[in-house]
Amino acid sequence: MRIVADENMPLVEEFFGEYGEITRLSGREMCADQLRDADILLVRSVTPVNAELLEGSRVRFVGTATIGFDHIDRDYLDQHGIGFASAPGSNAESVVDWVLSSLLLLDEQDGRVFTERVVGVVGAGNVGGRLLSRLRALGVTCLVCDPPRAEAEGEEGFVELDELLERADVVSLHTPLVSEGRHATFHLLNEQRIEALRSDQVLISAGRGDCVDSEALKARLQRDPGLRTVIDVWENEPAIDEALYRLATIATPHVAGYSLEGKMLGSEMLYQAVSRFYGLPARRSLGQMMPENWLKRIALSGRAPPMEALRLCARSCYDVRRDALLMERYRRHYGMAEGFDLMRKEYPLRREYSSLRVELKRSAGAVREMLEHAGFSIRDKRRK
Amino acid sequence: MRIVADENMPLVEEFFGEYGEITRLSGREMCADQLRDADILLVRSVTPVNAELLEGSRVRFVGTATIGFDHIDRDYLDQHGIGFASAPGSNAESVVDWVLSSLLLLDEQDGRVFTERVVGVVGAGNVGGRLLSRLRALGVTCLVCDPPRAEAEGEEGFVELDELLERADVVSLHTPLVSEGRHATFHLLNEQRIEALRSDQVLISAGRGDCVDSEALKARLQRDPGLRTVIDVWENEPAIDEALYRLATIATPHVAGYSLEGKMLGSEMLYQAVSRFYGLPARRSLGQMMPENWLKRIALSGRAPPMEALRLCARSCYDVRRDALLMERYRRHYGMAEGFDLMRKEYPLRREYSSLRVELKRSAGAVREMLEHAGFSIRDKRRK
Ligand SMILES: NC(=O)c1ccc[n+]([C@@H]2O[C@H](COP(=O)([O-])OP(=O)(O)OC[C@H]3O[C@@H](n4cnc5c(N)ncnc54)[C@H](O)[C@@H]3O)[C@@H](O)[C@H]2O)c1
Ligand SMILES: NC(=O)c1ccc[n+]([C@@H]2O[C@H](COP(=O)([O-])OP(=O)(O)OC[C@H]3O[C@@H](n4cnc5c(N)ncnc54)[C@H](O)[C@@H]3O)[C@@H](O)[C@H]2O)c1
Repeated sequence: MRIVADENMPLVEEFFGEYGEITRLSGREMCADQLRDADILLVRSVTPVNAELLEGSRVRFVGTATIGFDHIDRDYLDQHGIGFASAPGSNAESVVDWVLSSLLLLDEQDGRVFTERVVGVVGAGNVGGRLLSRLRALGVTCLVCDPPRAEAEGEEGFVELDELLERADVVSLHTPLVSEGRHATFHLLNEQRIEALRSDQVLISAGRGDCVDSEALKARLQRDPGLRTVIDVWENEPAIDEALYRLATIATPHVAGYSLEGKMLGSEMLYQAVSRFYGLPARRSLGQMMPENWLKRIALSGRAPPMEALRLCARSCYDVRRDALLMERYRRHYGMAEGFDLMRKEYPLRREYSSLRVELKRSAGAVREMLEHAGFSIRDKRRK
Repeated sequence: MRIVADENMPLVEEFFGEYGEITRLSGREMCADQLRDADILLVRSVTPVNAELLEGSRVRFVGTATIGFDHIDRDYLDQHGIGFASAPGSNAESVVDWVLSSLLLLDEQDGRVFTERVVGVVGAGNVGGRLLSRLRALGVTCLVCDPPRAEAEGEEGFVELDELLERADVVSLHTPLVSEGRHATFHLLNEQRIEALRSDQVLISAGRGDCVDSEALKARLQRDPGLRTVIDVWENEPAIDEALYRLATIATPHVAGYSLEGKMLGSEMLYQAVSRFYGLPARRSLGQMMPENWLKRIALSGRAPPMEALRLCARSCYDVRRDALLMERYRRHYGMAEGFDLMRKEYPLRREYSSLRVELKRSAGAVREMLEHAGFSIRDKRRK
């Protein structure tokens, strides 16, 4: 088989090498000519996959290593019997790391401890669901708003959005963009809801930029900079509102999901989908291929204050301030829109909490529990 | 012998237990009555030691676990044949950690690498000298201004202040306050020199607040916030200028030297001075007593990018942003002056780079060298 893949997709040779011959192409420049004798096409979000690209090719399977697929003409694929897969949830843990890093930073600003705040999660799918798992494991009181799920699964455990906005100390948005229907999310946080937020609340936005009315948010923050906001997704990306950017407590350019693990898991998911589609054995698995973290291990004493230990381990893997500082540099050098895109393209290596091995004595109860629940890999201290 | 010591001085029992009976008192409330039958008095900077305190006591030796001794009436001690010791250089490495942490943060802001900047050190005594050692080991080009030393040792290797201010990318001030004479340091950075600084320079101030004309610096920063400043020492501490505080890139409340190691080394220095004064054996040493860092070890791969490894290890020990965020919290809760003092009093645990063991393969050349030169303790990776 002939496999054509985006040059920036990791591990394609490692996973698909057995299945056929691999050609790597620039995702932004792919054209129909290059796909004439391809059987499998593997893309990222930068390649629109539609009639124009596929007409005349023998492509039977299209995979996108992304969780969204706005860039894929699913109707065309269906009409032509072309198999399809995306990578739902692949970068969900990465977003959770980003949220936790932000919460730890906000704690340092106000001297509180996030495990004692009430966190409201809006949209409890792949990202929101994993966020809830980790927060609850850490003992955080959570509120969940997800009307589609509440309808399907029953109201129990879910609250209305306005109740959540009223009761939560931290509001974390993880909804997709839905333009129409009863559960539309376009400007889900509208002017009225934004005005109703209290200054001591925190708003985190990592779903889609259009879920928040950014004009209204900007106006609110200009009047009352007390309200703290952590923003990764924006309206009009990459040409985002520079004034809003400046007013945000923490601002990053849609990179919350950009861990190495997330990207590699995307490739593995496509590999598994291809193997199912063609009935081929899937002998490879990500575990074998994941490169070692160059931060190999952190050894802690059982006397470590649990919150300090969490802060240390979290910062060692990923500190959201790295990306906030980097975004500001890109903005200064390239301007907002170009800088936004370029930073995403050149994004530096980032590992997930799960890749960090923390060595602790068996007896290190409290700190061990906290780190385990936050998502780190705990190892027992080796005997001497 | 009877030993009276400030209740906040660490390790007094451990060091002095053999020499006699120890009484602990509040440094701020010590009075003559309590010293009647004391032989040795051990204080910190909060206790003025003078005729009023010592008249009528049999104290023969006074030690202050600080590097300065403005609070000690040396003439009175001399006139009464009372031995004296301070702890010069005890917290110098701590200040160097603080400077390096600041340089790493500034790097993240502008995308440069501090090892490629020219750093000008003004005042090359205990602090400045150690800063120069570490910077030079890291390959940094340094300029040194220290006229008293240049006079004593010859001009070679020293430059004039104005040449340094002209040529250095980073200017780091580590002079004591000298009010009079040819080498006076009061407003050493006067209005004219402050105005002459370029916007792409960095000014670090960790000697004495009065060495910089803070009105002039404030005026300059109000006009041109491009110039970045890192300030630990201020005029009018603790009632420092709030506008200047806000304009500083990094602001901390005179805590650059506040590592645990620095404080403990101060106690050890007094112990050694007492043993010399009385001709007693000094059997104890700090190495035996230094508590283990709860961050026991960081294991790195030899493939770690050296600068990233340095950033990680430095941040794991001490991130100056912790103190900047904490200062802002104290200011908000207690107001500037009270918050400034209270934070110093309640200062959280901080360990020096030297206390962090970094495990690396013997073959890990570049990263090993960088970390060693920065001051970390390198261990060879144990064989399995
Ligand atoms: N910032 C990033 O880097 C990043 C990374 C991953 C995902 N995302 C985005 O986050 C969003 C969620 O991703 P996911 O993988 O969890 O998607 P998902 O489809 O797994 O989950 C979305 C959840 O939102 C719920 N939902 C839909 N409409 C809602 C409404 N009106 N109110 C409340 N909940 C509603 C759905 O029922 C579902 O449970 C997507 O828009 C995705 O593009 C961003
Ligand atoms: N920020 C903190 O937490 C902290 C910690 C330690 C020391 N300090 C302060 O830093 C200063 C230096 O401390 P140290 O232990 O290195 O003192 P030190 O006496 O060992 O060194 C001071 C050096 O400054 C030089 N000097 C004197 N006048 C000068 C001038 N006009 N121009 C240039 N150099 C001049 C001296 O020759 C000497 O080499 C002191 O004021 C001390 O109080 C602050």
